[in-house]
Amino acid sequence: MSKVSIIGAHNTAFGSFVKKDKETREVTDLKSIYELINEAGRGALADAGIEAAQVDGIWVGSCSPSLFANQEHLAPNALEVDPMGLRFKPATRCEDACASSSVALYNALYAVESGRCQTALVIGVEKMNLLDTKGVTHALACSSHWASEGAMGMTFPGLFAEYAKGYRDHYKYSDAKLAEMLAAVAALCYRNGLDNPLAHFGKGSPADRLGLSSAAAILGLPEDKNPMIAAPLRLHDCSLVSDGAAGLVITRTDLARKRGKPVVEIAGIGQTTERMAINVRPNMWELMAGKEAARLAFAEAGIIAADIDVAEVHDCFTINQILCTEALGLSADGKAGEDYLAGRFTRDD
Amino acid sequence: MSKVSIIGAHNTAFGSFVKKDKETREVTDLKSIYELINEAGRGALADAGIEAAQVDGIWVGSCSPSLFANQEHLAPNALEVDPMGLRFKPATRCEDACASSSVALYNALYAVESGRCQTALVIGVEKMNLLDTKGVTHALACSSHWASEGAMGMTFPGLFAEYAKGYRDHYKYSDAKLAEMLAAVAALCYRNGLDNPLAHFGKGSPADRLGLSSAAAILGLPEDKNPMIAAPLRLHDCSLVSDGAAGLVITRTDLARKRGKPVVEIAGIGQTTERMAINVRPNMWELMAGKEAARLAFAEAGIIAADIDVAEVHDCFTINQILCTEALGLSADGKAGEDYLAGRFTRDD
Repeated sequence: MSKVSIIGAHNTAFGSFVKKDKETREVTDLKSIYELINEAGRGALADAGIEAAQVDGIWVGSCSPSLFANQEHLAPNALEVDPMGLRFKPATRCEDACASSSVALYNALYAVESGRCQTALVIGVEKMNLLDTKGVTHALACSSHWASEGAMGMTFPGLFAEYAKGYRDHYKYSDAKLAEMLAAVAALCYRNGLDNPLAHFGKGSPADRLGLSSAAAILGLPEDKNPMIAAPLRLHDCSLVSDGAAGLVITRTDLARKRGKPVVEIAGIGQTTERMAINVRPNMWELMAGKEAARLAFAEAGIIAADIDVAEVHDCFTINQILCTEALGLSADGKAGEDYLAGRFTRDD
Repeated sequence: MSKVSIIGAHNTAFGSFVKKDKETREVTDLKSIYELINEAGRGALADAGIEAAQVDGIWVGSCSPSLFANQEHLAPNALEVDPMGLRFKPATRCEDACASSSVALYNALYAVESGRCQTALVIGVEKMNLLDTKGVTHALACSSHWASEGAMGMTFPGLFAEYAKGYRDHYKYSDAKLAEMLAAVAALCYRNGLDNPLAHFGKGSPADRLGLSSAAAILGLPEDKNPMIAAPLRLHDCSLVSDGAAGLVITRTDLARKRGKPVVEIAGIGQTTERMAINVRPNMWELMAGKEAARLAFAEAGIIAADIDVAEVHDCFTINQILCTEALGLSADGKAGEDYLAGRFTRDD
């Protein structure tokens, strides 16, 4: 078990923080990547109740800030969270596509475990909405294996569509059944959003106005309200293109406990990597590396999947939430879609 | 002192590994970013004499592979160094502009020190030559503070020109004297290249053919052979746009010593960060964060600058080599340029 605890956390609001003039094509940035970093970092430090000067190192996770916001070399910008307190502190950006901020946390944790840092600030940030759809599509495709995928016209929805087809075919689901399962996942995500004041699609959002809180409602949408993006994935199978940031403060558990405040010890983590190109992956119906990562995390924590009370599962596309749920062992292989459809996963489980 | 040692290392050749058809503008990649990663990783493992399966984690340093080669999410590509041996191993990309690969090494070292890894593979890679000059200029400008610099037309040579002017003005050097000092740095770099079979500009290169092994030779070039890029920096003050990669294998020193092979223990490291935008930096004639990083590294190693026998100094621009030499304490403040001019730093010092 790690000896590292979370003592502060902060999420910004998530949304599309730009104004685009359709006639002039002018894009006004309403909340920049710099502002998002500062807000998340300051919020996390305030939540921890520590001074910036107590931070020994900064890790920033971000997928593709140069393509999305022309800002490579992102980590030093986190010094602006508190220039007097953080100047000269080591700042590292970590990148692993969707897992960029998780990996930033892992590397910060290693530094604390190594004794190099007592206390670290970890910030995850994405500013995706400055680009148009074509630009976003290109940026995301750069996180595929470019030579064999992006360069050939493969898109990110297209990649996950390959998993959706693989899952459907391997477990012998009909197209209609698959669509129902995927819609059940989307509906749960929208319901969770309604209760989250920071969500991109919360109260008053299009999903709220359209009443997309059930699989039936999503399946009942007319074609133009839920068009096919990359068959079999439709619009509502694809996560939003969001701007937002989150911050964490971690420290050694023994120091954390002395503070007399809530301590969340990181019980276990697991990081694994699958080969990039999907044409070299053994199959397209399970996340084999994800299963191995979950095994490692559970082993470190000394628990099993059945001990889990709450899970946050990566939902970039509905099919991925299904695959991740199975990788975590929360559903049997091939059964997560049915479990979502049966309403097995709710906030109050 | 860290308890981590280098047991294997490999550099690829460095150069411009593309063929560009001036008429059709077609660019043929003669050695891809994937090939560079594989070559560096395989070379480092072979040099260490270990199997890939003995590696517990992979860290990849790269500045801007999405802008340069359309490949974000770079780290998993390192599994292809040995897909059977490395599959599922955690792979993290670190990015800190010019320091990306150093920071990858630091984070790998933290993971070894933490006990998370016994042995780590670290790969640094850049593939810069697929783009045209305009594209390279944009990619590098994204490593400036975009909002206040890149977006306003500031280039990377322009940023370092600000340091050159700051150094000249603070230490009251004439333009001619500054030019001499910068040329002395460039000449030393070219001389070192001649003896390095992997160098981009080695034997037979334009620098060799033009005989640029002395400051006098560089200063004597006609204007068109050494044009002003960003005053006072000329063409030969700017490093090449190179493709290449390097790999290291690190492990715990106690394990390294048991192997009965050469062991290079990492005696000390220091990582610090300066605020990004140059308009908030206290001055433009010294690298204050660099001095602090050197102080930390020397303290950890328990040595002083005078104990150093060999130094590799970042030479993206000649002025930066001067500033780094002073930050390391190898020259007194304001004296590195004169020291280079006096021939104080040679391979045989």
